[in-house]
Amino acid sequence: MKKRVVAFGELLGRFDTEGHERFAQAEMFKIGYTGAEANVLAALAHWGISTESVSRVPAHELGQACINFLRRYGIGTESILRGGDRLGLLYVENGASQRPSRVIYDRKGSSFAQLDPAELKWDGILEGAAWLCLSGITPALSPGLVIAQRKAIAAARRKGVLISYDCNYRSTLWSLDQARAVLPELVTGSDLIFGTPYDMKEIFGIEEPGVAGANRLREKFGIGRVAYTFRESPSTTQNIIKATLIGPGGSCDSRSYDIFVIDRIGSGDAFAAGILYGLIEGWPDQRTVEFGAAAACLKHSMPGDFLLSTIDEVNDLAESGRAGRIRR
Amino acid sequence: MKKRVVAFGELLGRFDTEGHERFAQAEMFKIGYTGAEANVLAALAHWGISTESVSRVPAHELGQACINFLRRYGIGTESILRGGDRLGLLYVENGASQRPSRVIYDRKGSSFAQLDPAELKWDGILEGAAWLCLSGITPALSPGLVIAQRKAIAAARRKGVLISYDCNYRSTLWSLDQARAVLPELVTGSDLIFGTPYDMKEIFGIEEPGVAGANRLREKFGIGRVAYTFRESPSTTQNIIKATLIGPGGSCDSRSYDIFVIDRIGSGDAFAAGILYGLIEGWPDQRTVEFGAAAACLKHSMPGDFLLSTIDEVNDLAESGRAGRIRR
Amino acid sequence: MKKRVVAFGELLGRFDTEGHERFAQAEMFKIGYTGAEANVLAALAHWGISTESVSRVPAHELGQACINFLRRYGIGTESILRGGDRLGLLYVENGASQRPSRVIYDRKGSSFAQLDPAELKWDGILEGAAWLCLSGITPALSPGLVIAQRKAIAAARRKGVLISYDCNYRSTLWSLDQARAVLPELVTGSDLIFGTPYDMKEIFGIEEPGVAGANRLREKFGIGRVAYTFRESPSTTQNIIKATLIGPGGSCDSRSYDIFVIDRIGSGDAFAAGILYGLIEGWPDQRTVEFGAAAACLKHSMPGDFLLSTIDEVNDLAESGRAGRIRR
Amino acid sequence: MKKRVVAFGELLGRFDTEGHERFAQAEMFKIGYTGAEANVLAALAHWGISTESVSRVPAHELGQACINFLRRYGIGTESILRGGDRLGLLYVENGASQRPSRVIYDRKGSSFAQLDPAELKWDGILEGAAWLCLSGITPALSPGLVIAQRKAIAAARRKGVLISYDCNYRSTLWSLDQARAVLPELVTGSDLIFGTPYDMKEIFGIEEPGVAGANRLREKFGIGRVAYTFRESPSTTQNIIKATLIGPGGSCDSRSYDIFVIDRIGSGDAFAAGILYGLIEGWPDQRTVEFGAAAACLKHSMPGDFLLSTIDEVNDLAESGRAGRIRR
Amino acid sequence: MKKRVVAFGELLGRFDTEGHERFAQAEMFKIGYTGAEANVLAALAHWGISTESVSRVPAHELGQACINFLRRYGIGTESILRGGDRLGLLYVENGASQRPSRVIYDRKGSSFAQLDPAELKWDGILEGAAWLCLSGITPALSPGLVIAQRKAIAAARRKGVLISYDCNYRSTLWSLDQARAVLPELVTGSDLIFGTPYDMKEIFGIEEPGVAGANRLREKFGIGRVAYTFRESPSTTQNIIKATLIGPGGSCDSRSYDIFVIDRIGSGDAFAAGILYGLIEGWPDQRTVEFGAAAACLKHSMPGDFLLSTIDEVNDLAESGRAGRIRR
Amino acid sequence: MKKRVVAFGELLGRFDTEGHERFAQAEMFKIGYTGAEANVLAALAHWGISTESVSRVPAHELGQACINFLRRYGIGTESILRGGDRLGLLYVENGASQRPSRVIYDRKGSSFAQLDPAELKWDGILEGAAWLCLSGITPALSPGLVIAQRKAIAAARRKGVLISYDCNYRSTLWSLDQARAVLPELVTGSDLIFGTPYDMKEIFGIEEPGVAGANRLREKFGIGRVAYTFRESPSTTQNIIKATLIGPGGSCDSRSYDIFVIDRIGSGDAFAAGILYGLIEGWPDQRTVEFGAAAACLKHSMPGDFLLSTIDEVNDLAESGRAGRIRR
Repeated sequence: MKKRVVAFGELLGRFDTEGHERFAQAEMFKIGYTGAEANVLAALAHWGISTESVSRVPAHELGQACINFLRRYGIGTESILRGGDRLGLLYVENGASQRPSRVIYDRKGSSFAQLDPAELKWDGILEGAAWLCLSGITPALSPGLVIAQRKAIAAARRKGVLISYDCNYRSTLWSLDQARAVLPELVTGSDLIFGTPYDMKEIFGIEEPGVAGANRLREKFGIGRVAYTFRESPSTTQNIIKATLIGPGGSCDSRSYDIFVIDRIGSGDAFAAGILYGLIEGWPDQRTVEFGAAAACLKHSMPGDFLLSTIDEVNDLAESGRAGRIRR
Repeated sequence: MKKRVVAFGELLGRFDTEGHERFAQAEMFKIGYTGAEANVLAALAHWGISTESVSRVPAHELGQACINFLRRYGIGTESILRGGDRLGLLYVENGASQRPSRVIYDRKGSSFAQLDPAELKWDGILEGAAWLCLSGITPALSPGLVIAQRKAIAAARRKGVLISYDCNYRSTLWSLDQARAVLPELVTGSDLIFGTPYDMKEIFGIEEPGVAGANRLREKFGIGRVAYTFRESPSTTQNIIKATLIGPGGSCDSRSYDIFVIDRIGSGDAFAAGILYGLIEGWPDQRTVEFGAAAACLKHSMPGDFLLSTIDEVNDLAESGRAGRIRR
Repeated sequence: MKKRVVAFGELLGRFDTEGHERFAQAEMFKIGYTGAEANVLAALAHWGISTESVSRVPAHELGQACINFLRRYGIGTESILRGGDRLGLLYVENGASQRPSRVIYDRKGSSFAQLDPAELKWDGILEGAAWLCLSGITPALSPGLVIAQRKAIAAARRKGVLISYDCNYRSTLWSLDQARAVLPELVTGSDLIFGTPYDMKEIFGIEEPGVAGANRLREKFGIGRVAYTFRESPSTTQNIIKATLIGPGGSCDSRSYDIFVIDRIGSGDAFAAGILYGLIEGWPDQRTVEFGAAAACLKHSMPGDFLLSTIDEVNDLAESGRAGRIRR
Repeated sequence: MKKRVVAFGELLGRFDTEGHERFAQAEMFKIGYTGAEANVLAALAHWGISTESVSRVPAHELGQACINFLRRYGIGTESILRGGDRLGLLYVENGASQRPSRVIYDRKGSSFAQLDPAELKWDGILEGAAWLCLSGITPALSPGLVIAQRKAIAAARRKGVLISYDCNYRSTLWSLDQARAVLPELVTGSDLIFGTPYDMKEIFGIEEPGVAGANRLREKFGIGRVAYTFRESPSTTQNIIKATLIGPGGSCDSRSYDIFVIDRIGSGDAFAAGILYGLIEGWPDQRTVEFGAAAACLKHSMPGDFLLSTIDEVNDLAESGRAGRIRR
Repeated sequence: MKKRVVAFGELLGRFDTEGHERFAQAEMFKIGYTGAEANVLAALAHWGISTESVSRVPAHELGQACINFLRRYGIGTESILRGGDRLGLLYVENGASQRPSRVIYDRKGSSFAQLDPAELKWDGILEGAAWLCLSGITPALSPGLVIAQRKAIAAARRKGVLISYDCNYRSTLWSLDQARAVLPELVTGSDLIFGTPYDMKEIFGIEEPGVAGANRLREKFGIGRVAYTFRESPSTTQNIIKATLIGPGGSCDSRSYDIFVIDRIGSGDAFAAGILYGLIEGWPDQRTVEFGAAAACLKHSMPGDFLLSTIDEVNDLAESGRAGRIRR
Repeated sequence: MKKRVVAFGELLGRFDTEGHERFAQAEMFKIGYTGAEANVLAALAHWGISTESVSRVPAHELGQACINFLRRYGIGTESILRGGDRLGLLYVENGASQRPSRVIYDRKGSSFAQLDPAELKWDGILEGAAWLCLSGITPALSPGLVIAQRKAIAAARRKGVLISYDCNYRSTLWSLDQARAVLPELVTGSDLIFGTPYDMKEIFGIEEPGVAGANRLREKFGIGRVAYTFRESPSTTQNIIKATLIGPGGSCDSRSYDIFVIDRIGSGDAFAAGILYGLIEGWPDQRTVEFGAAAACLKHSMPGDFLLSTIDEVNDLAESGRAGRIRR
């Protein structure tokens, strides 16, 4: 088994309307489970990496169903705590053409937000881990989670575990001022971060755009690598993406993909998983960014938040840049 | 149009697994909307009574979908406020045979629980109303709702609106001590109350069982009529119910029904609607209790919380005691 | 291939709500196709009899889908005409417990009711046929269909084809007076008729009940055999049936079945098919009536109007009177 | 509440096959309810306009389900009569790529076509109305409906209610000669009409194309404004539309939309609703035509006949011309 | 009835995941039945040709369900044998965008592969047939099937039945060496063959590409006509196809179609059906190849393996090259 | 974590028709995964026991989906081999009333039947195990599996792992003679066996019925405990079961359950799990047999082969003998 990846973040139930129905039309919802960090683990587990989700869900049947969902896709669940009031939820309505998709979050008062930092024994959890995955969603959920994330980071440092941090600023969870007060400290010294140009400018105060900005960010906060995707959206149904990875050896761009979108949620997490996989494998950055971009691209072609493509499937696309023939 | 019935209570989303699936197996949930008081209104609206739901839902698409659901079944929704954090939910798993059904509530922090009593202008809301329907669930949800219910009762008294109160004690929402501190005051002077023997003994301190206890309750709290059903459950699939109505003119028992259960949730509310309908129509208590019991019985034969049987259908059963032939 | 059975009657689309939903709740309808006479053919075709449906459907895709449905289950469709305005429909809501099932017919102005009797060439259609199946629904639909049925009967007589006539009086289609003016003539001389005690009394003026009445009917109208089932309905979910066959050799009763009802529509037609099959095979009447009753019983255990049980399955039940073990 | 809009037209049940199934493959149909005029009201109701549907449905459960569907989406249903034989239907098969969509109408002998003009008391119905919406489908259904529409128009004139008339010529319902004998009279003096170039030429005898023709039509029949959309269909899946509004102040064109089609039915009605909304709000014609075109565009992105986009959503598209980002 | 077409080949169950779900996500599978040769017959039967499938399925309910599926779509099933162990299966996962579709075959040990050549009486089966359809899949399944196909060919020659042979080389069923040892003999003297450039080169040793190669193939093996399609796949969702037919009178190219793909499986068989139909009708090759290409194009627009478009629908597209308007 | 239970047996895909549809009606199949031994593990895993499935599935996506299904419900899958041709299948049609359920097996040539005994390293697999679960299905599938089971037994003896053996004689897999030649040897010395009276008599030559026979079996083959259930089937919908456990301390009978059957498949495996759990916990035999019977009873109330009831739920039923109230 390859090295172990641990991720700490909220797990949520996801309710999807059927097809392209609007919420007002919905009679049935498809249930799935998600979480930015868990989505990263799902792809890694699919690729044979040993993974561990660190989170907290209620001690009832839906909390168990969430855990079962992760187990089904091979994610380790031994470090998930049980307790608290409720499982956070998101409701998703899949847009089309000129109509954007719509997500309603219902995550207030969740078991995860109520987590007591003392409950997590990080030294044990991180035993044998190669990477720890974090995101900027977690500190936005409660003051206790800021502390919990700090403790996780400190333990990772102690044990030589690399840190990947996805900024993931969400204006519906906290203000820019709140984020600015916390995120710069938390990301400092990360080995890899994912961030949009907006994040870089508004939260980290980086004025330069693109690669220059990424390098400025690396210097300012002692960060190893920075990665991001660039997306054009001629419509909800058609998106065009490409990716960039900037590290000590310079910057690499991936090829660009013109995508017919089935479900774009989770594509950023699939990208993160792809980059992490390349780094774990010790691939050159160019190969890594192509792998990450292909992973992000493929996520758009399937429902749900998890990328369920094999390494061969991602590599085939990363190398050829296009869909192969029907496989039979 | 017949006289108007107003009901004040929480509205919730209801997610059902398919068939007899357990939560752990569920991939799809059927969505519906419910609430003890709204369920009463749904039956009354189906029977041609003008109804009005007083509640509060979030100002997003699911709040709107909840309102649309009520409108669909003819319930008035002009007095539903919009705001607050979330729509309370319940998840339902339909049991069978020796396996009981299972309900998980997720109603903490709901828009309704956050309601500010000052937002409701009861004199306007109750204009033209014949009855106001309340339940013991509401005061269990927040201190503000105790105040809101008190205001509603006071306004009803002022305007000569009759009050129906369903005790509905739920141990998962509050303790017996909490209920004892509030419910006796709130039910005092009601024109009709629904309560189980357990409620009568534990909350209202009535030691006598059955009809004697009901009469004791009527005297002690100045209540017009008391109604309840008695249920035997040989299994989750087979239930046997009958009903009793005790009023100034004595007590009446309904016939008994041996039921094959499709969905028993909402049957108590259907019973309440049936009793209210009989009182609105001025029927003799015996006819009223038969109508209420038949309404409760029929609710078990259809999915969802709302009784969707016509007056003729309920009357046919109330009179014959058995299913008619296929109607074509 | 066994001898050929021809049936003349309307074909209808059948829309079912899902599970036990009421019409007001329905979002999806399951589509099937039916017709009293076609239902008889479906069972016979399943048992290896060569069958032919004579009817008329519109010349559009739904008319074709109806024909495809019959073909799928092995019914001959070469004699189905195409033309006219619309396919008749019925909507079905499956009751339960004390709630009766509900059927809404929407068959006015159907292609079949508009059929011109001159379009059917009965001598060719009946070539090689052993039996012609008719019902009392057809003459109720239009004056032209009375003529068409008369022509079919005359041709059958000419060609020595036996006639089976299911009275099937439906008060929603015509009045008793209308039926009395036509049915006695049409059933006269039939080799087999199916009729309820109500039919016998109200339409044919037979005062005696049961077997005596059936024998009176046989004499009065020169009928070969009379068959009927007797049904008790403690609830929509539980029905108890047994059957009787009266012929020249006396009367035979089947065993009785206590049935958990999945879908009772089509059980009368399955019974008719079972009786016809016994007569075609030349079985003794006792075996025939047991086979017919078992066929009727089994129809209740599956959705849709067609009995899809093999000869072995029906025989197993007819002989043992109870469900066998799981078959694997 | 904004001013009231009344619409008079048939209500139909709509049965859709699932996904892109052809009729011959369908096992399940999704049920919805529709009607050209009701579709206009649905969008207006969604935007907060008080609406009233004037129609007639059968007095059975499906008639009620149709009314419930309108209520669900906020349309007023107090003026819908009950009676007659049947609910008109349409069956829809959603095409794709080079395969056109297919609609089978089954509306002959409907309750609405059987409507007696004397049943409608227009002065009461139109009380407080700002606009009356009519279409050229109604007079095509029966002579009685020509009379009913004439009476509606006369009452609207008396009460100062503005009239919107959608020509909607359907060759499957009546011939050009029949339409020419009736429509010119009915549209004369309308404040707004919707019509295709084909309608203008073949029914109203306008030879000039485009804006010139629209102005000629306005003069000849004393019409306030004329609106239409222009659609290119490279395939069933890709449509390109833009819109034009011609009035006293000249003509305005909307931007053009390149659309990935989910369901194009109802897009013309969504356009009509958008134009009416702009006129009700007193917007400049340019803003009005952009709003109408965006409404039409968005309707293509969701299943069913009703446009369920908020004013903000339509405005966002009207202003930017493209889908926004995922909304969460 | 037009002349009769007989096809000999395996029948398989086809299980599809829902929408664009991956196998790992599937909870439900849609069941259909297929087979390269049966797919050809389905289209021909839809166009009014008398057809007959020659195959073998197990003597249980799923074997019967497969036969029922063929009957439903009008294919003759009298020559299908029953016996053997199992029905071959394929599982299909519908790809999208850059993700290719995926087919898992599970056809080892099927009833068809176990077929004893002596069971088929070809002289009787081919009585009255105009064409016999064969494919290169059959000899790949078992040595007995090579013999069976040889016998079929010999009988066709004896009876003057024309032969259509679809090479259909599948590397997962046999090696090129195995195919080279058998196919050249089997296709020799066919009146029509379908083959890819890859087939021509690798199996038949034709070095020339395109039309030149086809003519070389015709000469070398005494073949009447050669037909093939050329497909470009910018993505799984977008395919571009055109077709070529080469015969004694020269070669004809069809127009090209830019397709939004719903389900591309079966499009090659629809093409074959279209070419056969043109030959049966005696159309000029140009019209025939256009009809075949339009048939192939339309197959992509509907789920399942069968082309369910009428002759008029195919002709409309073949003539105009684009989707018509919505048909209502 | 409690002691570890290892089970060795085939894993199969299970396809269910919807509701009570017959195979001939099925359009959709629900997919699940099963196996007699895996079903035992599923219940044990649900109760917190560490489990390990030893089996073999194909190295494709459906093999992976099968593994994922086990992981989802907490079963250890590290010892499942990958390779071979196919996943064995069963198709299930859920009977009702007088119609028995029907199972079609399609397991010939499965990956498991092709397993090479040398592939399994039993000493490692059984490390730390308390029990090894085997069944008489495995040796019926191939000679190699007889050897594999012998090796497993030998290793268990060496390592002091207790053996549970479920006879599970299936006449469709092998003859009595074949079973008699192998099973007596394999069960000798088991610590626990499950067997029907039929198995005892026909395979093991025990003439005495009931408890006497069980004790005779224990003596003759050196078996620790014998357990079985007794089932009466008034209909497919109603079953009555009770259980007996015979050991060194005598025999114990459970209470009897009158069951409304949702899905009876897997109830024998749930019983086995219950007995094993009691033995693992060291409960008295009376408590153990009640727990086992309650587990078997509850399995009938849910779809699928796995018992998904908690220890508390099973204990509640084992103690009270009836369904509790709705749990909310």
